[in-house]
Amino acid sequence: MSIDSVPVRVLAPDSGLSGNAWPLMMEIADMVRRLVDSGETAAIDLSALPLTPADKEWLRERLGTGQVHVSLEAEGQSSLDETACPGVWWITHRDTRGRVMSEFIEVTLVPDLVRAHPEDIKIGLGYLEGVISQLS
Amino acid sequence: MSIDSVPVRVLAPDSGLSGNAWPLMMEIADMVRRLVDSGETAAIDLSALPLTPADKEWLRERLGTGQVHVSLEAEGQSSLDETACPGVWWITHRDTRGRVMSEFIEVTLVPDLVRAHPEDIKIGLGYLEGVISQLS
Repeated sequence: MSIDSVPVRVLAPDSGLSGNAWPLMMEIADMVRRLVDSGETAAIDLSALPLTPADKEWLRERLGTGQVHVSLEAEGQSSLDETACPGVWWITHRDTRGRVMSEFIEVTLVPDLVRAHPEDIKIGLGYLEGVISQLS
Repeated sequence: MSIDSVPVRVLAPDSGLSGNAWPLMMEIADMVRRLVDSGETAAIDLSALPLTPADKEWLRERLGTGQVHVSLEAEGQSSLDETACPGVWWITHRDTRGRVMSEFIEVTLVPDLVRAHPEDIKIGLGYLEGVISQLS
């Protein structure tokens, strides 16, 4: 048995890391800087990047857990969790069977999905007026 | 036993209603109208109003349940639930023992508590830069 055929076991605590998480961390910091400086918002589609599960865990640990957690139900559940770095949100969309469909890091004061949209508010107002007219 | 001493049992489905929930419903519709027309936001402190538990339940049922649910942990848990009428949020603040401390109806695109605040984002950026400098 030559040395080449000995299975390599990486015992380092960073086992499974591809090396792609660290530059992503720098990019997130840049995005936050732009949010502070000019109010510019940005998002990174994690599903589109060559990240290993360990990369994501590494990133998630370093970004930490914030105070605000949003859940949104619309054809599957989405979670929009603020990280310990305010303005940096970790967004996971799942299908109706709970499978992760996509993951994003969004750098913004509040993710767009959380905000009520004017057209929906108008529809809601119509609903409220209907309830009131039934009671009158 | 005179008729006056017979205990009255209200069997109507609206048992326990004070009559204060209905005008509140009209006020909420007015608030939503102002949000649509001019972007004006407003809040009602339910704790400050003479509402019975049945009033609140009546109101909550009629406002319905929306898609967005926010939980926020800061010296007790707060829940900020969008109702079925987008832009109308039911907000409950609890203490560390889970007791309801206050309840609000807020009419806004997104409750202020959900939004990241510029000063906090700057602090978070400092934290991120610290993490990056440790890795460099």
